[in-house]
Amino acid sequence: MFDFELLKESKNTEARLAEITTSHGKIETPIFMPVGTQATVKAMSSRELKEINSQIILANTYHLYLRPGDELIKKAGGLHDFMSWDRPILTDSGGFQVFSLSDMREIKEEGVYFRSHLDGSKHFISPEKSMQIQKNLGSDIVMAFDECPPYPAEKSYVEKSLNRTLRWAERSKKEMENSEQALFGIIQGGVYPELRKESVKEICKLDFPGYSIGGVSVGEPKEEIYKILDYTTPIMPKNKPRYLMGVGTPEDLLEGVYYGIDMFDCVMPTRIARHGQVFTAEGRLTVRNAVYAEDFNPLDSDCDCHVCQNYTRGYIRHLLKRNEILGVRLTSYHNLYFMLEFSEKIRKAIKEDRFLDFREEFYQKYKLK
Amino acid sequence: MFDFELLKESKNTEARLAEITTSHGKIETPIFMPVGTQATVKAMSSRELKEINSQIILANTYHLYLRPGDELIKKAGGLHDFMSWDRPILTDSGGFQVFSLSDMREIKEEGVYFRSHLDGSKHFISPEKSMQIQKNLGSDIVMAFDECPPYPAEKSYVEKSLNRTLRWAERSKKEMENSEQALFGIIQGGVYPELRKESVKEICKLDFPGYSIGGVSVGEPKEEIYKILDYTTPIMPKNKPRYLMGVGTPEDLLEGVYYGIDMFDCVMPTRIARHGQVFTAEGRLTVRNAVYAEDFNPLDSDCDCHVCQNYTRGYIRHLLKRNEILGVRLTSYHNLYFMLEFSEKIRKAIKEDRFLDFREEFYQKYKLK
Ligand SMILES: [Zn+2]
Ligand SMILES: [Zn+2]
Repeated sequence: MFDFELLKESKNTEARLAEITTSHGKIETPIFMPVGTQATVKAMSSRELKEINSQIILANTYHLYLRPGDELIKKAGGLHDFMSWDRPILTDSGGFQVFSLSDMREIKEEGVYFRSHLDGSKHFISPEKSMQIQKNLGSDIVMAFDECPPYPAEKSYVEKSLNRTLRWAERSKKEMENSEQALFGIIQGGVYPELRKESVKEICKLDFPGYSIGGVSVGEPKEEIYKILDYTTPIMPKNKPRYLMGVGTPEDLLEGVYYGIDMFDCVMPTRIARHGQVFTAEGRLTVRNAVYAEDFNPLDSDCDCHVCQNYTRGYIRHLLKRNEILGVRLTSYHNLYFMLEFSEKIRKAIKEDRFLDFREEFYQKYKLK
Repeated sequence: MFDFELLKESKNTEARLAEITTSHGKIETPIFMPVGTQATVKAMSSRELKEINSQIILANTYHLYLRPGDELIKKAGGLHDFMSWDRPILTDSGGFQVFSLSDMREIKEEGVYFRSHLDGSKHFISPEKSMQIQKNLGSDIVMAFDECPPYPAEKSYVEKSLNRTLRWAERSKKEMENSEQALFGIIQGGVYPELRKESVKEICKLDFPGYSIGGVSVGEPKEEIYKILDYTTPIMPKNKPRYLMGVGTPEDLLEGVYYGIDMFDCVMPTRIARHGQVFTAEGRLTVRNAVYAEDFNPLDSDCDCHVCQNYTRGYIRHLLKRNEILGVRLTSYHNLYFMLEFSEKIRKAIKEDRFLDFREEFYQKYKLK
């Protein structure tokens, strides 16, 4: 089951408000999706994820295929049962990790041969294999198997890759026929406008229930991403969800929404949390620093999350310095809460026709790094 | 504020049911106290500790004195505010860690000179200093500063040490005069019955609101501890709480209670949790082992904790193998729940005059290592 309802379009920007329905519940967009790479959003429990209003989480096909194995997860009743999460799950196709993590990969028309980054063992993933793995995982939203070219890459290479990705999209779709899982097509084309346009045109002919913008967050400057969005989203179908893959800082959300993106994911909020850094309304703050040792204020005095209501910077700094697990738990919890609360504020601003004002107010207060 | 009320004495054993009242709430005994060495019970949050019915937790004076420093904790409003825990806290005197962790210690009549195990810096702790630190921490129950001799130790050394510990107990008491915090006297004497008896007699003359049995859990066989209890608890005052320091496996609780102990603490439940081992009604189970990879039963099918109601052995094994924080969170939560639930069952058994039957039933099912 999958449905997308466009509720409202912003007057002065491409920003939009929508609702996605899956068999594991509804998702209000624009939305940030916490990343649970190995069937766990790092340091968080499923009830904490619910408490902070996570509507959907992401899991990584490549990692779960290697360990513990998608067959094992199938035996456990699928990913939802395995990790005790009864809300929607989105899985990627494994492509991105095969291209960024694995060793000695060989890309052929039939699929990709590669060695595991963990133990060097040999593997082969094709569009069909990726779909089979994602079927075993039982996610609500699945991604077509694509090639994600590096940045920078020659236009001729990106074009060649793009065409293969299109053929792979067709094969992914065929393998997912009659499935309850919603398969998203992926738009590639690097930083080349003609190729992105070509990709949108061709991929949309396959009529997927949703579309992802891939090939971003591979090392290019942020401005490149926004440029891509500027010429890509306007030609994408309005009545389908748009997911910007692997992108999701607060400023990315604002810009992405501005250009008409509905869904975001990023490991950054939990990754910086592990390094002792947190979001505040005024910008990022490294609470691990000595200057916060005797600061008994909350992480962010504007935040009403459980952490900010109960713990201080000084205590959290102490925990982080001592490598106590609770330290990372508290920073991770706050950072994800911040992102989800921020998504909620964006939705409210769109609803109330003040998204541009909201965006400006944010930048006035939030110091960019 | 401190009060001890003896509610019931077992007919056939020394087991007893009691209630302690502190300014941060009541404690029903016999009780297991989770250990929060560095102002955090490892991997647990304060609300999780409450959810599993932790009535009182322990914190370590030595560690908190060194980092972040008791003066800093005082500035934060004391240990309760610092760590966001509003139930009772017990602190040790620092003595045990000075003797077991620090380098180049020199024991003099005035106190102990030592070097920090962290950075080699020089420190001095006396009975007065230990009390001042514990005042800064603001714990509900504080321990007198004592020397904890190693095992084995010559009788002549233990006797000499014992007498110094008595003089230190007097000084501790003097320093804590007019304090709201309840100071416990510590019984030493090693494995020598005459010395233990001497210690009880002399320390009780000082009329402390409670008594700890120290100098155990220093490497001696378990049987030695039970032997010490057998001749020590019967001569201790009935109307005061009895705390067996640093001892607290399930079997230790049963034996300790049998001999008349009210309070226990031990790092073992959280330590084995970090190594992937959990308590079950049938004994300890190493859920990290490969044999549990496809076991989708709860950690302990007899357990009704949040973890056992929501997660499986196979999932927890996956998390532990991947070094995911949630793995250690779940095993720590379950193990502490097990200990607190076990304390509750012991209290119920005493109340219903069936403690000996309960003890026997436990041993029939629980495989000792
Ligand atoms: Zn917060
Ligand atoms: Zn349990």
